[in-house]
Amino acid sequence: MEKFKRSERLVALTKYLTHHPRELISLGFFSEMFSAAKSTISEDLVIMRDTLAGLEMGVLETLPGAGGGVKFIPLMGESESEVFLQGLSQQLSQPERIIPGGFLYMTDLLFDPVISAQAGTIFASKFAVLNPEVVITIETKGIPLALMTAQALHVPLVVIRNDSRVTEGSSVSINYLSGSTRRIQTMSLPRRSLRKGMRVVVIDDFMKAGGTAKGMLELLEEFDSKVLGVGVLISTLEPQEKLVNDYISLLELVDIEEQPRRILIRPTH
Amino acid sequence: MEKFKRSERLVALTKYLTHHPRELISLGFFSEMFSAAKSTISEDLVIMRDTLAGLEMGVLETLPGAGGGVKFIPLMGESESEVFLQGLSQQLSQPERIIPGGFLYMTDLLFDPVISAQAGTIFASKFAVLNPEVVITIETKGIPLALMTAQALHVPLVVIRNDSRVTEGSSVSINYLSGSTRRIQTMSLPRRSLRKGMRVVVIDDFMKAGGTAKGMLELLEEFDSKVLGVGVLISTLEPQEKLVNDYISLLELVDIEEQPRRILIRPTH
Repeated sequence: MEKFKRSERLVALTKYLTHHPRELISLGFFSEMFSAAKSTISEDLVIMRDTLAGLEMGVLETLPGAGGGVKFIPLMGESESEVFLQGLSQQLSQPERIIPGGFLYMTDLLFDPVISAQAGTIFASKFAVLNPEVVITIETKGIPLALMTAQALHVPLVVIRNDSRVTEGSSVSINYLSGSTRRIQTMSLPRRSLRKGMRVVVIDDFMKAGGTAKGMLELLEEFDSKVLGVGVLISTLEPQEKLVNDYISLLELVDIEEQPRRILIRPTH
Repeated sequence: MEKFKRSERLVALTKYLTHHPRELISLGFFSEMFSAAKSTISEDLVIMRDTLAGLEMGVLETLPGAGGGVKFIPLMGESESEVFLQGLSQQLSQPERIIPGGFLYMTDLLFDPVISAQAGTIFASKFAVLNPEVVITIETKGIPLALMTAQALHVPLVVIRNDSRVTEGSSVSINYLSGSTRRIQTMSLPRRSLRKGMRVVVIDDFMKAGGTAKGMLELLEEFDSKVLGVGVLISTLEPQEKLVNDYISLLELVDIEEQPRRILIRPTH
């Protein structure tokens, strides 16, 4: 196998590691890929680590020992995160997003891969320290956020469905009161989709009274899940008392009026 | 601003460009980021391009001129793609995935961010040459595949819903016969979610007779969409005659039997 120069190894190492977030890769793997000594790879990784840290592009963690290796932790710098959330707030605060009934149209932004990837990286930064094993959401609009959070955390995603499907075997179902449709709905999760007693993080797009989030927590109790945290993209200021006490919200909806059209969304501080 | 060494610039360039797939970035942007001459950045990009190409990690395209710049095209090499599809076929062909009714349980794999990102990169490689402006799917299980395809293509995602939601304004709806539930269902798309006459690619997880795909094409006609292609992760060999003629399938389901349990899925060739 031909030898690579340092500059070439750095390109390949950066591509590989940043596209396998939070996956522990042994130095032996790269040593073989480049036909290079592990000490050489170690020197490359120092350059990579210092550069990423200096530019707030993420953290490179090295674990010593036989079972060790290196992994990339995606992080969004404070300033980049602030700029992103300010920009998203402005996009969401356009009056033409107000739909008859006083609802907010935000589906286009929720399904945007660039936006969901950035928000997912922020959620992952907040929850990673708790060592979640799986991310949970409920269909449909929270899926992109939750998928990108799961990707950045390097864990699987499990999606709660609004009815039990014949194609997924036996399920556990509960009823809950959804704030947005103001009616009793069903949510369900196939038994085989989640092992008992897992460490989970719940991600959703929107929280008003918290009925849906509360339903998800109840359903997760049936699986003896340890809920480490709940993250939502937007929560409303009113009602102040939510049915769920402990959650992180990236943005807050301060006000939405249909006549005259007025809307204010801002980053949560 | 402090100066960066070549090795440092290569780490940062690789991180930035590979995480902004198919986005055209001007050399001036990097020139400012690193306080370096554009000619220096150009030299860096040659090293990056050759390394990525040599390792089949993607393509770096440079567009000359005033409106030019550089963009990263994610690609999965033929051998890596083959290994991925073989591995996925084996995972899907486990007999314990057969659910009463003769259905295949594959939700865990469809929602896996690593799997959906790889399959999305393959779809993007196949459809990029057609210059799609948007990726379309239908809720729920196709969303991760479609989102990752949209990310790799650097276009938005639009998700067709199974009922029209009050929170999304006026919608266009059609009825269709779904093969999996064997009943008439409704699919709908908010008017504001898709402009008239757009160039679209349709992505879904599974195709049997093609009823759902045909429904999507009919719905897209209402938006005067130009459907450039249809991509599904798995299609069944039977029925051979699908309701949709032109589609790409990554895997094919050759056989599934409940008694005795038997299943065969393989890459499409």
